[in-house]
Amino acid sequence: MAATFTQPHAHGRLFSTSPVAKPTRKLLSPFTVRMSLQENGPSVAVVGVTGAVGQEFLSVLTDRDFPYRSIKMLASKRSAGKQMTFEGRNYTVEELTADSFDGVDIALFSAGGSISKQFGPAAVEKGTIVVDNSSAFRMVDGVPLVIPEVNPQAMHGIKVGMGKGALIANPNCSTIICLMAATPLHQRAKVLRMVVSTYQAASGAGAAAMEELELQTREVLEGKPPTCNIFSQQVCPFGDALLSYLCSFFIVFSCFTSEADEMVFAGCVQYAFNLFSHNAPVQPNGYNEEEMKLVKETRKIWSDLDVKVTATCIRVPVMRAHAESVNLQFEKPLDEDTAREILKNAAGVVVIDDRASNHFPTPLEVSNKDDVAVGRIRQDLSQEGNHGLDIFVCGDQIRKGAALNAIQIAEMLL
Amino acid sequence: MAATFTQPHAHGRLFSTSPVAKPTRKLLSPFTVRMSLQENGPSVAVVGVTGAVGQEFLSVLTDRDFPYRSIKMLASKRSAGKQMTFEGRNYTVEELTADSFDGVDIALFSAGGSISKQFGPAAVEKGTIVVDNSSAFRMVDGVPLVIPEVNPQAMHGIKVGMGKGALIANPNCSTIICLMAATPLHQRAKVLRMVVSTYQAASGAGAAAMEELELQTREVLEGKPPTCNIFSQQVCPFGDALLSYLCSFFIVFSCFTSEADEMVFAGCVQYAFNLFSHNAPVQPNGYNEEEMKLVKETRKIWSDLDVKVTATCIRVPVMRAHAESVNLQFEKPLDEDTAREILKNAAGVVVIDDRASNHFPTPLEVSNKDDVAVGRIRQDLSQEGNHGLDIFVCGDQIRKGAALNAIQIAEMLL
Repeated sequence: MAATFTQPHAHGRLFSTSPVAKPTRKLLSPFTVRMSLQENGPSVAVVGVTGAVGQEFLSVLTDRDFPYRSIKMLASKRSAGKQMTFEGRNYTVEELTADSFDGVDIALFSAGGSISKQFGPAAVEKGTIVVDNSSAFRMVDGVPLVIPEVNPQAMHGIKVGMGKGALIANPNCSTIICLMAATPLHQRAKVLRMVVSTYQAASGAGAAAMEELELQTREVLEGKPPTCNIFSQQVCPFGDALLSYLCSFFIVFSCFTSEADEMVFAGCVQYAFNLFSHNAPVQPNGYNEEEMKLVKETRKIWSDLDVKVTATCIRVPVMRAHAESVNLQFEKPLDEDTAREILKNAAGVVVIDDRASNHFPTPLEVSNKDDVAVGRIRQDLSQEGNHGLDIFVCGDQIRKGAALNAIQIAEMLL
Repeated sequence: MAATFTQPHAHGRLFSTSPVAKPTRKLLSPFTVRMSLQENGPSVAVVGVTGAVGQEFLSVLTDRDFPYRSIKMLASKRSAGKQMTFEGRNYTVEELTADSFDGVDIALFSAGGSISKQFGPAAVEKGTIVVDNSSAFRMVDGVPLVIPEVNPQAMHGIKVGMGKGALIANPNCSTIICLMAATPLHQRAKVLRMVVSTYQAASGAGAAAMEELELQTREVLEGKPPTCNIFSQQVCPFGDALLSYLCSFFIVFSCFTSEADEMVFAGCVQYAFNLFSHNAPVQPNGYNEEEMKLVKETRKIWSDLDVKVTATCIRVPVMRAHAESVNLQFEKPLDEDTAREILKNAAGVVVIDDRASNHFPTPLEVSNKDDVAVGRIRQDLSQEGNHGLDIFVCGDQIRKGAALNAIQIAEMLL
């Protein structure tokens, strides 16, 4: 029995120092001519193709035999001209411009919120259906915010060939991973309140953050001071704790209008062998943006403005999969055995809940996997009757938390 | 302002590969003759002196100028005969036997539950006051379970020189760190319910676990399979998932009657760049022992059998300080500004809560420090009115979570 739990190849899973993340599932030789290149398939564009999620888009398209008649590789001017191979064909990375979307049916965006804001509506104007991985449009009325296993009805009627463009938002990674497990229980017993604490991987901050975690770890083990290019404490430009509220506004503003690498940083935050409150800007209410995404996106995805959610988001020194400790309070009674059965039958969810062997989900075990793993399913001792459960959830941040979910949305457009 | 947040020496904080953890605060030269060696001081014994907490006992005794007229270094037969230097004097580690406690006023135990059960009552018989760091006696009626800043009254009347021995239990590290922050708020507004998710360091599993985390990390970075001597998934001796309840009983039993290294293990759990549900045995109710300690010890320390507590305990790849995300529900209203002021004035607590600079407690920042750090103090959006708060707490597991708390208890015996 125990043999199935060993992870003999775990040591090979560390993020490669190559900027191109390796697809690891069902990967065919690059020289195989794929059937997914089909004349009647849609024309596709990948925006931000050189980033961690952009690369995972390509990996998932391949894994799922996503049909396409053409694919454009789009990125910033800096990356334009780079050569890449995808499914046995050579491509040149093109600079993203307003003209990039001529004749494009589906555009997968993952290049940050400001790029989405600048080019998303322009693409829609040209008749493209944009699946956007940024936070830019998630809370905009009329833009569906979709987890295909959870609320496919939100994008009802949006299809390639309907003759007009559309925007569909991919939820935040923490929200997707949490709701993959919480929704089947919510559908049975109605969640009234949810208390979430996250254990988030480096990948959520991009490929450079993964590289920095690896670099810092090497440095710390060698007794050297850690390099801090990505994670640093932010200097408030007002330079005074009394003006911290003003400062919060500034940081929130800077996050929405530019990308993180343009922000003013100072003060090294060691990530190796350490953890820290999520690096998203903190709002005046004391929650950071990442936490508020969990609060707001859950309400929109569940179409339930009354559901109470609180979250504490923490970055841990793990490469590419998030974990979340979720405490649930239900309107109707729900015992743990029933909850376990519901989760075992839920699409995209795998239950790992072996108390005898102390085997529960870990980030490493779900890395490069499609399914979200749930375990530690138990009746909450702190709630009366059968109205509370504690669960522990792990999911690959780049895959189901971003690229896979977006491509599942794209599949529903066909 | 930001300069004060930098951690330029963080790279020196990794656990030394030497089995003897270095004391890092206020350490005098080993050749200085300390004033703490005093004829009218108590005679002291340290049980488990070669372990991580045993070594920290010595460090804290020095840091706090704890007075003593003699000190015995006690350990298992395996370590007996080893030479060590403490405050400028040479000592030979002695084998722990029933006769070890003749003439000993205070014995600090940290050698596991079975050693405490075997030798603790014998020491008390000889008139020794035992401060026990294991879980052996924590929940025994009549044994005070003490955090000096929280419930000093529980050990009222127990003093060196009173002519008889006594047992005092040191709470579990997660409980101490949580309650250092939660108690001042509880005293003002009465905690009704507490939802805790932990981010626990390697040190809680001992010096060997810290070494294994460091070793595994080196191996993973070199592309080698990780060594798994300490953390492994347990094989259920009944070998059948249908018998998992029986199995749970077995594992709980084996934990209470022997030490972890005697358990049957199989299945490597990679700790480097990963995290996992706390390795304590899981009870039939689905909670592991570590979680149940938080539930039960909180009730005893607060003398409040009604307080509702749930916990999810997770081991993260951090060396020696725990973090905890704590959601609190109060009987009386308590706003976040008042809470912050209460915590700023609480003994043994430091508030790090700078929203503008995104500077909050981290395990690294509290490593080798006495105080428990609290931040992310904010009104819980998921609770009505001012009856809920979220906080994030970090504390050194070896220090306040174990050795410091025990020696604070010992100071109250004088």
